[in-house]
Amino acid sequence: MHFLIIGGDAAGMSAASRAKRLDPSLQVTVLEQTFDVSYSACGMPYNIADASRSMEELVVRRAEVFRAKQQIDVRLGHRAESIDPAARTVSGQTHDGTDFTLGYDQLLIATGARPIKPEVPGRDLEGVMVLKSLEQGRTIKDYLARSGAGKAVIVGMGYIAMEMAEALRTRGLEVAMIKPRPVLLPWMAPELSATVKKTLESNDVKLYPGHGLQEIEKRGKRLRVVCQDDLSLDADLVLVAVGVTPNSRLAGEAGLELSVKKSIAVDKRLQTSVQGIFAAGDCADAFNVVSGQRVWVPLALRANRAGWAVADNVCGKHTELPGIAGTAVFKVFDLQVARTGLTSGEAEKSGFNPAAVTITSRSKAHGQPGSSPILVHMIGDKKTGRLLGAQMVGKEGVAHRINAAAVALQAAMTVADFFQCDLAYAPPFGPVWDPLLTAANQLLKKL
Amino acid sequence: MHFLIIGGDAAGMSAASRAKRLDPSLQVTVLEQTFDVSYSACGMPYNIADASRSMEELVVRRAEVFRAKQQIDVRLGHRAESIDPAARTVSGQTHDGTDFTLGYDQLLIATGARPIKPEVPGRDLEGVMVLKSLEQGRTIKDYLARSGAGKAVIVGMGYIAMEMAEALRTRGLEVAMIKPRPVLLPWMAPELSATVKKTLESNDVKLYPGHGLQEIEKRGKRLRVVCQDDLSLDADLVLVAVGVTPNSRLAGEAGLELSVKKSIAVDKRLQTSVQGIFAAGDCADAFNVVSGQRVWVPLALRANRAGWAVADNVCGKHTELPGIAGTAVFKVFDLQVARTGLTSGEAEKSGFNPAAVTITSRSKAHGQPGSSPILVHMIGDKKTGRLLGAQMVGKEGVAHRINAAAVALQAAMTVADFFQCDLAYAPPFGPVWDPLLTAANQLLKKL
Repeated sequence: MHFLIIGGDAAGMSAASRAKRLDPSLQVTVLEQTFDVSYSACGMPYNIADASRSMEELVVRRAEVFRAKQQIDVRLGHRAESIDPAARTVSGQTHDGTDFTLGYDQLLIATGARPIKPEVPGRDLEGVMVLKSLEQGRTIKDYLARSGAGKAVIVGMGYIAMEMAEALRTRGLEVAMIKPRPVLLPWMAPELSATVKKTLESNDVKLYPGHGLQEIEKRGKRLRVVCQDDLSLDADLVLVAVGVTPNSRLAGEAGLELSVKKSIAVDKRLQTSVQGIFAAGDCADAFNVVSGQRVWVPLALRANRAGWAVADNVCGKHTELPGIAGTAVFKVFDLQVARTGLTSGEAEKSGFNPAAVTITSRSKAHGQPGSSPILVHMIGDKKTGRLLGAQMVGKEGVAHRINAAAVALQAAMTVADFFQCDLAYAPPFGPVWDPLLTAANQLLKKL
Repeated sequence: MHFLIIGGDAAGMSAASRAKRLDPSLQVTVLEQTFDVSYSACGMPYNIADASRSMEELVVRRAEVFRAKQQIDVRLGHRAESIDPAARTVSGQTHDGTDFTLGYDQLLIATGARPIKPEVPGRDLEGVMVLKSLEQGRTIKDYLARSGAGKAVIVGMGYIAMEMAEALRTRGLEVAMIKPRPVLLPWMAPELSATVKKTLESNDVKLYPGHGLQEIEKRGKRLRVVCQDDLSLDADLVLVAVGVTPNSRLAGEAGLELSVKKSIAVDKRLQTSVQGIFAAGDCADAFNVVSGQRVWVPLALRANRAGWAVADNVCGKHTELPGIAGTAVFKVFDLQVARTGLTSGEAEKSGFNPAAVTITSRSKAHGQPGSSPILVHMIGDKKTGRLLGAQMVGKEGVAHRINAAAVALQAAMTVADFFQCDLAYAPPFGPVWDPLLTAANQLLKKL
């Protein structure tokens, strides 16, 4: 049996490796349009921050290793251009212009997502960059090394934008950030996003919310970023980080059903609307375990997990994924920012009747020096008492703490049941009542 | 109605405060035999470690404040000596020798626990100390300040013993630890306790397991600690930290049912075997949410939570506590050590058929500098697939990570369901697959 995989990143290579482990007799082929497979994409901002480190440190396993040790037929520079579900073939072109057509018994589409680059004049000028693939990471790092760039404008204020703001500040660049809408992190409770804003500002990142990108001009050796509302900023480097969009063209053209934000619709087995064709990773959708609704959340753990589940199903081991809670964490300078589950807005749209609280607690116990504030925003449902979501910011103890709420969401716990959980306590690590428990206790009064 | 409370520490003062909030008309009296109420007992080792800090920083709220702001009648230096459940009275003596008898409508016994001091010659010599009450903490700190002690022997190798080993090393003392049994932290998986051992040894703490205490002698200005198996150690300070025992004599003499290790048996409402008499805090037992069995785990969160639940029930708001998972964390030098749920041994005794794995993961993602090992030991039930417990050690990301497993235990999740949880990922905070998920995945293969 031939298991063909389009895309050799997290989902694709996870599926390939696991399928070969489960069934060594399986013929597994991976088509990867770039020359990189299996790398830590999320690690790029941290690598870029450190001029002394090679970008190649992020490579987890090279194509040669997959070929030699696991007998996976990894074909680099192979771009898939069409799928014929009736004939069960995939056609495309190699980097040197040779056409190819390959048959399959089972197919995995793991084409990932690509950065959105707004259609404005100057978007293709030298020094205007995006960050998603390792090659794009190398381009940014090389540019920093050779251009002596001193000033950067980041378009967008999401996770990646903030991680890159920190990276570029660490490299000594002046950094300004722009976005069209007036609110920083609009999904976040205002008190929490105010903390993020303060952290960015106290690290000399200039924020210009309410100033969308209009045009990028070349001005001598520099770029000029022209924004809405009479703002123009000079820059040596412009990083466009306004989000990503699923690479689902192939799937759409093959007649597969698309879903939220044009991601590929998959069931809990990760199968698309066509039998024998699976999709996983940043190109595919998922079910939210709280709302039960289809969502598109391109994050690494889901991609890896979905790749494994596809391998299971291809190899006859029936596996269903319950879905995601939407847990995410990022670091911006000395701040940890985390979320899981629904926001109040999402909860309302999903038919819940949400109530929410925001509390301030501490990272260490009373009388313990070096303590810092932890802000928790927690959302519950007035009708059922169910926990719906949590958000947290703080300098320590946030990144892993959010997981307690994530597990509670997966178990469909009520806020009252969550409040009874026996969470760990020792003075260096938090107050007797964990910040999440304090939030739950306050939230209970509103339900 | 008169709500009388014996003991003004975590459980007692939590109950008093909440009862007054719920029903301001309630008459609330607290009898406290010492002159301290409401302090962070768990913070004492960290305070002792720092000569510049006053022990009084650990006081959360003074008796005057409870009296003036909350109208709680806190009586310091009042030692309860007997309870008459038939007459509904408590009798005792004040610190200046005056007898008292007080009636009650509802009674809370929150007498806590006291350190065990083995019956060996020399146990009452100057310089031989225990640590449980704030007054004992002050005694140790004063002794360190005035004696110029250079050498300490700690009897015992549990949480408090280790926290104090770190504190005394921080103060510049030479530290040796002794215990009768050969195994350090016998409840812990061997690979994990080996990591704790290495941390203690690399911080120049001398460990003598297998050497029980026989006698303490006065030798000139110093003490000599005579141990089993031909070991004698000189010391200026001997800290006895071999565990605590519940203060349940009063309850036992009043005919109340006792439970595990002579703790006071309570139901889920925290009521003892006698109606109208509650017990909470370190003197009372609890139900383990995994085994359903009665356990005695004297920890701060449970004490606070139980105090609140008693107040609810006294004030007519029916409240049941499901029980504890047995979650605990401690810090020893740069190591975080955590557990939740059952050990394999406890699981077997509780009728489960446990399987366990130990895995080594990392605190940060691939290619991220500054990563350190995280060891996870995880236990599941072969019959039901249920998650039974987890243990973890590492230099970062352990203390709060254990909570994810604690919530899973409270929700009675299977290992398979826990493995599907959507835990947070970002490169500075862990690998894509959280160490707990990696452990769950390995454990699934054994179930």
